[in-house]
Order: sequence, then C-alpha cells, then structure tokens
Amino acid sequence: MTTTATNPLDALVTHLQETALLSTSNNLLDWDQETMMPGGGLEWRARQQALIARMVHERASSLERGDLIAAVESNAKFMAEPQTAALVREAKRDYTKATKLPSSLVEEMAKTSSMAKHEWAEARAASDFKRFAPWLEKLVGLLRAQADCYGVPAGGERWDALADLYEPGCTAKYVAGVFEPLRPRLQKLIADIKSAPRKPADGFNDYFVGIDQQEALSKLVAQSIGFDFNRGRLDRSTHPFCGGTHCNDVRMTTRYNERCVNDALGSTMHESGHGIYEQGLDFSRIGTPLGESVSLGIHESQSRMWENQVGRSRAFWSWLATKLPSTIGADASRFTLDELYGAANVVEPGFIRVEADEATYNLHVMVRFEIERAVIGGSLEVAGIPSVWNKLYKDLLGLEVPDDRRGCLQDIHWSMGAMGYFPTYTLGNLYASQLFEAACEQMPGLVDGFSRGEFAGLKKWLNENIHVHGRRYAPSELVQRVTGKPLSAEPLMRHLEGKLRPLYGI
Amino acid sequence: MTTTATNPLDALVTHLQETALLSTSNNLLDWDQETMMPGGGLEWRARQQALIARMVHERASSLERGDLIAAVESNAKFMAEPQTAALVREAKRDYTKATKLPSSLVEEMAKTSSMAKHEWAEARAASDFKRFAPWLEKLVGLLRAQADCYGVPAGGERWDALADLYEPGCTAKYVAGVFEPLRPRLQKLIADIKSAPRKPADGFNDYFVGIDQQEALSKLVAQSIGFDFNRGRLDRSTHPFCGGTHCNDVRMTTRYNERCVNDALGSTMHESGHGIYEQGLDFSRIGTPLGESVSLGIHESQSRMWENQVGRSRAFWSWLATKLPSTIGADASRFTLDELYGAANVVEPGFIRVEADEATYNLHVMVRFEIERAVIGGSLEVAGIPSVWNKLYKDLLGLEVPDDRRGCLQDIHWSMGAMGYFPTYTLGNLYASQLFEAACEQMPGLVDGFSRGEFAGLKKWLNENIHVHGRRYAPSELVQRVTGKPLSAEPLMRHLEGKLRPLYGI
Repeated sequence: MTTTATNPLDALVTHLQETALLSTSNNLLDWDQETMMPGGGLEWRARQQALIARMVHERASSLERGDLIAAVESNAKFMAEPQTAALVREAKRDYTKATKLPSSLVEEMAKTSSMAKHEWAEARAASDFKRFAPWLEKLVGLLRAQADCYGVPAGGERWDALADLYEPGCTAKYVAGVFEPLRPRLQKLIADIKSAPRKPADGFNDYFVGIDQQEALSKLVAQSIGFDFNRGRLDRSTHPFCGGTHCNDVRMTTRYNERCVNDALGSTMHESGHGIYEQGLDFSRIGTPLGESVSLGIHESQSRMWENQVGRSRAFWSWLATKLPSTIGADASRFTLDELYGAANVVEPGFIRVEADEATYNLHVMVRFEIERAVIGGSLEVAGIPSVWNKLYKDLLGLEVPDDRRGCLQDIHWSMGAMGYFPTYTLGNLYASQLFEAACEQMPGLVDGFSRGEFAGLKKWLNENIHVHGRRYAPSELVQRVTGKPLSAEPLMRHLEGKLRPLYGI
Repeated sequence: MTTTATNPLDALVTHLQETALLSTSNNLLDWDQETMMPGGGLEWRARQQALIARMVHERASSLERGDLIAAVESNAKFMAEPQTAALVREAKRDYTKATKLPSSLVEEMAKTSSMAKHEWAEARAASDFKRFAPWLEKLVGLLRAQADCYGVPAGGERWDALADLYEPGCTAKYVAGVFEPLRPRLQKLIADIKSAPRKPADGFNDYFVGIDQQEALSKLVAQSIGFDFNRGRLDRSTHPFCGGTHCNDVRMTTRYNERCVNDALGSTMHESGHGIYEQGLDFSRIGTPLGESVSLGIHESQSRMWENQVGRSRAFWSWLATKLPSTIGADASRFTLDELYGAANVVEPGFIRVEADEATYNLHVMVRFEIERAVIGGSLEVAGIPSVWNKLYKDLLGLEVPDDRRGCLQDIHWSMGAMGYFPTYTLGNLYASQLFEAACEQMPGLVDGFSRGEFAGLKKWLNENIHVHGRRYAPSELVQRVTGKPLSAEPLMRHLEGKLRPLYGI
C-alpha cells in the first residue's frame, strides 16, 4: 500500500487508517456472520476473515509502521502536542504487541475462532459441551501460545498477558484482590434479600409481549436515550453484541424472549450504552488510537450505566410507563410504577449471566474468572470445565446447573478466543457506579430528568468526559480525572445497598 | 501474501483464491450497503471498498500472477488437461485486462461509484437528474479512460472495450446488427397487440397484497424453483439484484409494491434465476475462472428463463394458483387460471424496464444501448441524456416520459460505472429462448411438470449443461454445444408470437 503523505505524522495516520479500513471490513464480516449469513457461507467466511486478519496483522507489525512511529516520536515539535504524544504512545503499545505475535498464529486464531463460534452455537443448542470441547482445547492452546509471545509479566501469570489486551495493566492478582472483598459483601446482601420480609411485585416479568412489539419498544428506548439510528442499527442474534465498523456505522444486536420483555429491554439498554460510546468517538480521529475506545472495562461501564443506573431506576420507569401502551399494547397500562420498578429489580440467583440482576451479576463473572485463570494456568483441563463450573455455581449462587446450555456453554466469549475478558464486566460495574455518582454530583436533578425522558444531559456528559478522548488517557487516569478519586468498590456497594435494601425492606 | 504451494498450478489457484477472498469481501460490503448500512456509514464504506478494490487489482495485475500463469502455460503436462487449459486461458484473459488498468484508476472508479450509487438513489427519489449529472460525468470520464487503457479493437469503438468486460467479444456493431432486425418485428407484434380484438383479464395485477405476505410468497416460489436458502438469502433493496460472495452464500434482493404482487414475483423469479446459476457453480473451483459465471448474457439467460419461460407460463400459474390462498390470503382463490395467466402476460408499453413485459422489454434495452454508445463515443453530453431518453421512449414505445425518476434515473447501472452492460439483457433473452427450446426438446413433458410444481428437472439440466462449467466454454461455444446451433433470434420471436398472438386473439 502506498502512502503519499509527506510528513511522518500524516504518513503514520494514513498507515493506521488504511489498516483500520481492513480491520473494520472484517468487523462487518463478523457482524454479518452473526446476524445475516446463511449457514452455507461458513467455510469461505472463515477463510476471508483469516486472510484479512493476517493482512491487518502484517501491516500492524510492519517495519514501515515501526519506522513511522519512531520518526514521529523523535520529532520534538510533533511530540509537544499532547494529543499527538498520546497517539504515538498508544500506537507504540499496539505495535509492540503486534510485533510479538507471528502472522501464522494470528491467522490460525482468526480461522479457528470463526469455526469455533459456529460449533459453539450448535453445541449450545444441543447442550453438548463435548461437541465444543475440541474447539475450545484448540483455542486454549493458541491462547497460551499467544500469552507466551506477549510475555508473562514478572511475578505474574500467563492469564495477565491476555487480560492486558482488554484492560491495559490488568493482572489476575489485581482482579483477585478486587473480587475477594467484594464477594462476601455481595453474598451477604443476596442472603439478606433471600430472607427479606417482602419482595417487589414482579408481574411485569411474566407479561407476554410479541417479538415485533418488543423490537419496536427496544428501538424507541435506544433512540430515546441517545443512540442515533442514522449511524447504526439494531438487529437480532443469538448472543447480543455491539459491533459494526466505526462511529458512524454501529451495529447492535439483541434477542427477544416473548415471556419476558425485560430481557430484551435490559440487553438493548446495555448494547445501546456500548453503541453510544462508539458513536461518541471522534470521526476525525478514526482509525487512530484517539478514535478508539480506551478499554473494555470503560466500555462496559457505559453499557452497565445505561442498563442499571439509568434503566433500573424508578425515574426511568416512570417515563417508560407512559410509552408502554403505544408500543407493547394498551393492556400494559395496568401495571403500577411499583410493579414496573420492582420487576426491573428482582434479585434472584439464576443460571444465565446476561439475564442476571445487578447484585448476583458479579458472582457470575467470578466463576468465569476462576475457570479461565485455571485453564490458561494449566491447573484445569478443558474437559473438566463443566464440573468446576457447576461446583462454583453451587458454592457462589447456591444453584444446581441443569445442563451445559444453561452452564458453561452460555457465553460466546471463549468460542471467540477471548479469555481475560470477563473480569472487565465487573470492572465496568465498578467504573459505572463511580462515574455515575460523579455525574449526579455535577448535574443536580439528573435522575429526576429521566422521569421526563431527559437523557441528553447524561449522554452529553459522557460524550465530553469519556467518549471523545478515545485512548488519550489510561482507564485509571480517566476515572481519576473525571471523578477526582481512584477506582473504589464503595460506589457500587452504595448503589446496590441503597436501592435494594429499601425495596426488600431489609 | 505467501503462497506455500509447491507446484505452479497449485500456486496459481492459491493466488486466484486469495484474491477472491478479498474481492468477495468487497461484494459483501456492497450487498450490505444496498440492504443494511445506515446512511452515516457511507463515507467510510466508500474508502473501504476503494482500498480493497485497489488491493484486488494489485494482486490481479501482479508480476507474481503473470509468472504463475506463464509457468503453468509452459508446462505441457498441465495444459494437456482440458479444464486446466481453460483455467489458464481465462486467467490469462483476466490478467491481460488487469495489467492494462492502473491501480489509481481502479481505486478512483470504486470510490466514485460507491458515492455515485448513493447520489443516484437520492436523485432518483427526488427525480432530479441534475443532482446526479456531475457524478455521471465523472464516471463517464473514468469509463472512457478505462476503455482507452483496454484499447479499442480495430474497426471498433470505445464502447466495445467496456462491453467485452461483460460479454466477451461483444461489440456495438454486433449488438446493433442483432437489434436492428429485432426492433421492427417487436414493434409489429406490439402494434398488433395494441389493436387486438381482445385483452387478457388482468385483475390480479390490481390486487392489493401486504408486503409481508408478498415476501412469504416470494420465498416460497424461490425455494420451490430450486433456490437453496441454506446457501443464500432474499432481502429488500431499492433495485433488485443478486450479489453475495460465492455459490454457498448468494444474496438476492427484491422490492415490493403492495398494489401489484406480480412486480415482486417477477423480480424474485428473475433474481432466483441468477441465484440458482450462482449456487450451481462448483465450490471446489471457487475463486478460479472455472468456478465463475461465463458472461452476463448467459447469466441473464438464466434469470429471464425462470422469469419468463417458466414464470409466465400457463403451467406455472396452474401450480402457483394452488399456493396463493395459503400465502397471500384465501380471497386470492377467486382468480381463475385465465386471469392469473393473463395478468402475467399483459403487454403494454410502460416507463420502467424492470416492470416491462417480455415483448416491450427489449425496446427498453435498445434505448439504453443507443444512449450509452453515444455518451461513450462522445456524440452525446451527459446533460443531454434526459431529452434523448425521452425522445427515444416516444419513438420506440410511444410514451411521453413524465419525469426522470420514471426516465433516465430508473436504473442503478450507470451509477455503478457499468456501461456496455445493458445489451446483455437482450442477449440473455435470446439465449434463454434458445436454451429453453433445447431443454423442452430433450425433456418431453417438462412444461407440463411445472403445473405439478416440478422444477427440479429444469434446474438439474441447467446445472449440468450451463452452471457447472463456469467459464470453461465461451458463451457462443456453450450455446452451440447445448443447443446444437449458433445463437439466433428465431426462438425468442417463436416464444413471443406463439404465446401472445393466441392470448390476444391476433
């Protein structure tokens, strides 16, 4: 590929953007595979994705890229501009990572995960872990090789090298340190709820709503909270996700369960949070680190904030109650605000992470963290996953897992070759609580506005404080800048205790 | 890109296939743009497509490709195998064409047509040719440059160099020679029909059918005639087309008009004909000329055969009549077979090519041929297109074109940078008639079978005689092999006269 730019900064940006043209094309192939592609397309699609992934990797690890970064870095005039300095810092981080991986491994991973995702979907439908196990074994082997290429940090473990891809600087030790004190506090709250004197009315959770009506409601809510449908879509897939190619073409998906409208609503709010973050990135910085999201933890903070801090608030439901009759049927007006708000906040241990309430959610994440840490570390074989999974669900959530479909086959992540990813969900919950507290302090009356359908203030605050910066600041630095404090578990526990104890009369 | 194959034939196939992985990815981006992409995605999509088109062109015109072709060609053992000889012949044809075009021109064309398609859709909606004109001027400039790169054949004209891309060996002189005698015969038939003593009952053409029901009917018909939905899709777009990435992932589209179910039905049959051809290509030959369709004329023969020879036959309608009540409503059973068959065969000059009946269709093509021949030849300015268009519609079809939406903005082709393409539609009609006559001779009772929903025999015959060969035989050679005769206009006129004269009592 030819770069006609004359100064090294322009040349670097062109190099980054041309690579992004390819990688985002692969993102679209991925979205298509999950939402549109007929089954017959699988084999060729896997080869398409593998080739493009290889080409992206070759460019991202090329001598030309390295030379361009070095040329900008050695130019004091360029580096005096803080945005450029941040761009170079992050481009260098990516380049260093990319040069450590051989192309053959990148391609093998892309090809294997493309097939494995399909096998996972089939195995999940059949609740047959054995069918998926050989693919997962192959992926684990590739992930270990990948970790070894990146290099295990001193005093750390292989898992850390993978987690760093999703949350810069994240280690198993750090995660364990965050999870360990959180676990008993969550378990205490859940136990108190279990023996609570009253339960919220939750009839709305058994209210049958047709899928087309749910889709209309989901689109209304996504649009109302700020997702721009001129720059994105909402479709259906087995596992909800937010993908697409760039800030002006964001592809979200959700799934619908006729027996529970709150499933689709929660996952739509969640994916809309991701989508609003993506749409809030700076198009003029597209393809460069300054036009990319900073970490999965911060990404998840956006989805969880809209899903939980907004979407499970009493104020939100007092607004949404006025929209239900026109979208899902006049009969929906029979539910009181207490019933709607209550239904959104039922706490009950269940099998499925993506359907979990806010209190039990983090325990689901802890199960996955423990398993993937052991599998990557080598103390657990892939074949042993179902039994360890089921034991952990018994210990942490008090549940007997009935089958692998509702157990260790429920999530798509491992089939995509993503390990070290799950803990970012809990980090996201912690970030979300802390950021939302700051937003409420800085904008008095914010939550009251939700009851009038006013969500633009929060969206604008997030656009300006989080989204537009891209990767300019590290996640911890960003949280410190915006909230004035380092990350802490207190805001999450305040949020949960403050809402759930009154609701359950405990 | 690395080719690890050890013999030159394997290496050539790998090189062709890797290029096809990229070009088919671009096909998917194209399909997505027409069916799914939100408007905001346009700018980045144009850049994605331009980059991938440039990379495909660089590979297709690379020294490596040339060397591999030469290495196989010089190996007598390889060339003794007729399939390999055909593969090399066609690969060489493509290579020669590709090396004549500079990358910059390929990229400029991809980028311009991606934007122009969007502008065309807007201009068409607003019926505003002036809005589209600057884009078309730019495209015409690029097309002329392209023709000059290919080189104008001795005694020929620029247009020929473009037409050869779609129909190998096709020249304006040849097309004019086919069209000139056909025109008076068609005009005579149409004039006779205009003054005919009776008209077929056509009430079914005014029968209101909801879009969801039409879609169900369209899918049923596509599947019944042999389109495999495990290896393809049917979606909606402004202009129906058949795209997708390869034989196992074929993406057709259609459009629906609530006031006339025959519009969608005709276009679905048409696109299904294309789709069945694509699905009939040999997956083991994918990416090589032996796994590609031979020409647009032959492609069109497949779509027109299913649309016209099958889909406007009395036998087909006697089968479809039994399916209408369950798909589009019980009330549809009130139409008699005469009314259904009649409605499918109304001949009446109209403005829109894709809605035209079989008799007037070729006159629409002649208008476009005359205009693009003049525009590329330089005797007509882009700004003059609407008035020439309207004059030709008056002369050939006796119609006053009311606006550009129903005039020169109706087709997507020119906005895609496709000139030299339209005549393949009429060649397709000629091929279709001649091939279908041969099929009927070789399979007595074929048409009767349609009345029992038996379409598999024709599909199998087309699979074996046309589809599986890919580009092994040139179009004219293929027709000669299958029908035992060179291409002639007689079967088309026999088909039209034989059906329409009795129907209109003339």
